[in-house]
Amino acid sequence: MKRTELFEQIRRKRSFLCIGLDTDIEKIPAFLKETSDPVFEFNRQIIDLTHDLCVAYKPNLAFYESLGAEGWTSLEKTIRHIRTNYPEQFIIADAKRGDIGNTSGLYARAFFEKLDVDAVTVAPYMGEDSVKPFLTYPGRWAIVLALTSNKGAYDFQLVADDKGEQLFEKVLITSQSWGNPDNMMYVVGATKAEKLAEIRSIVPDHFLLVPGVGAQGGSLEEVARFGMNGQCGLLVNSSRAIIYASAGEDFAQRAREEAMKVQGEMEELLREKGLV
Amino acid sequence: MKRTELFEQIRRKRSFLCIGLDTDIEKIPAFLKETSDPVFEFNRQIIDLTHDLCVAYKPNLAFYESLGAEGWTSLEKTIRHIRTNYPEQFIIADAKRGDIGNTSGLYARAFFEKLDVDAVTVAPYMGEDSVKPFLTYPGRWAIVLALTSNKGAYDFQLVADDKGEQLFEKVLITSQSWGNPDNMMYVVGATKAEKLAEIRSIVPDHFLLVPGVGAQGGSLEEVARFGMNGQCGLLVNSSRAIIYASAGEDFAQRAREEAMKVQGEMEELLREKGLV
Repeated sequence: MKRTELFEQIRRKRSFLCIGLDTDIEKIPAFLKETSDPVFEFNRQIIDLTHDLCVAYKPNLAFYESLGAEGWTSLEKTIRHIRTNYPEQFIIADAKRGDIGNTSGLYARAFFEKLDVDAVTVAPYMGEDSVKPFLTYPGRWAIVLALTSNKGAYDFQLVADDKGEQLFEKVLITSQSWGNPDNMMYVVGATKAEKLAEIRSIVPDHFLLVPGVGAQGGSLEEVARFGMNGQCGLLVNSSRAIIYASAGEDFAQRAREEAMKVQGEMEELLREKGLV
Repeated sequence: MKRTELFEQIRRKRSFLCIGLDTDIEKIPAFLKETSDPVFEFNRQIIDLTHDLCVAYKPNLAFYESLGAEGWTSLEKTIRHIRTNYPEQFIIADAKRGDIGNTSGLYARAFFEKLDVDAVTVAPYMGEDSVKPFLTYPGRWAIVLALTSNKGAYDFQLVADDKGEQLFEKVLITSQSWGNPDNMMYVVGATKAEKLAEIRSIVPDHFLLVPGVGAQGGSLEEVARFGMNGQCGLLVNSSRAIIYASAGEDFAQRAREEAMKVQGEMEELLREKGLV
């Protein structure tokens, strides 16, 4: 998917919501466990009741891998369901991959050709050749970790070099020569919203994938204030607060209600910025 | 597996070889493609003819993921084959995972409980809570990326902070407080062998997993000279040079011959150090 198409979708739905499909077999409603593929069935119902409120879905690979080959099958079915029924959606494999060049090339093949997602999250520790293979597929994206939402982000990402440049800044600056705003995005945690203004000054045009709103405590309003650009430039993710809004038979309906609240707030923020 | 058991195995086999199972469906001998699971069949024959010459196997997850759910099944079968027939082997999932705490916890479950490997390679960019969940399983290991063998390693790993400490050194120093030499190892590329002496001064007791010997150009002798400690402390990986020694029907036999050459060199190096 092209950047202009993503922005068009954001304007049409008045939403920049990404719903995280962190589908934990231990947390899904009990009655679904009698179906042949409970993880897929959970995802399918969530997707069918939220697709008009969000522009992206982000399955977190750990949840599927923890179920082995069966989990991969559930993941493949989920992606196929979205592709077939809601082709406007942007699908992100939250996989945080990264390896030497030829191995990253295989990961790119796994995600873009086999799984058929639009984007993959990528860890930058191994540098250029670990990221570049994800940038060679037209219309597909690498979403590079810059400043993450967790406490451990402080261990290395905020360490400054001898010129005072912090590692996450160096990642933003260096990686810009690997790709461009049409094939790269960055992960920036909502829990570090005060850093967003600075990040915007380094990467004015790139989309930012922002996790950490909701269960992790980040503020949507602050993210929009400091991070929104003229093409929105934000995909804000919410996982648990939406998909686990209820553990009962009404889980999908309750997920819809939560997603609708977020979409409403997003519409307001887009309006303030003059984008809708 | 405990560190003492790993060392015992190294002494018994006079080898610290790890064979990388980077099994590429496009590179395996044509005649295997008629079997029902060519990737597993390739691995099985390689393993059956090399298990007495190596102490570890390291499947590279990208190769299996690129085949989707089927690839995971081949991986699960490969690990079960090793566990059942060669229980002394140390099995490393080369996955380079790392995410926020609860997600890393799920990856740990995926690899240690579901796949049943001994160790997982982990990327340190996201810091402490991204690595710690891998350290809570007795006898299991996190192998943290420190200084990798690829060109991109120079982009961030060798950047010095205002005290002159390079990122890979900071990773080695900081991460020591997360675990200990009985549940953590480090990845150090053989192509950076000159750095091994310095690394050994920071982590004298930890095992180092060293890729990059063979196809990537690193020297085994240099790795041993600078990296070996009193319990060997090295697992040196070779993938392509062994498993693709021949593309014919003799592939497993030729893999054995290549592994035997490496084992012979390793025996010499262990003898020089007085460890066998």
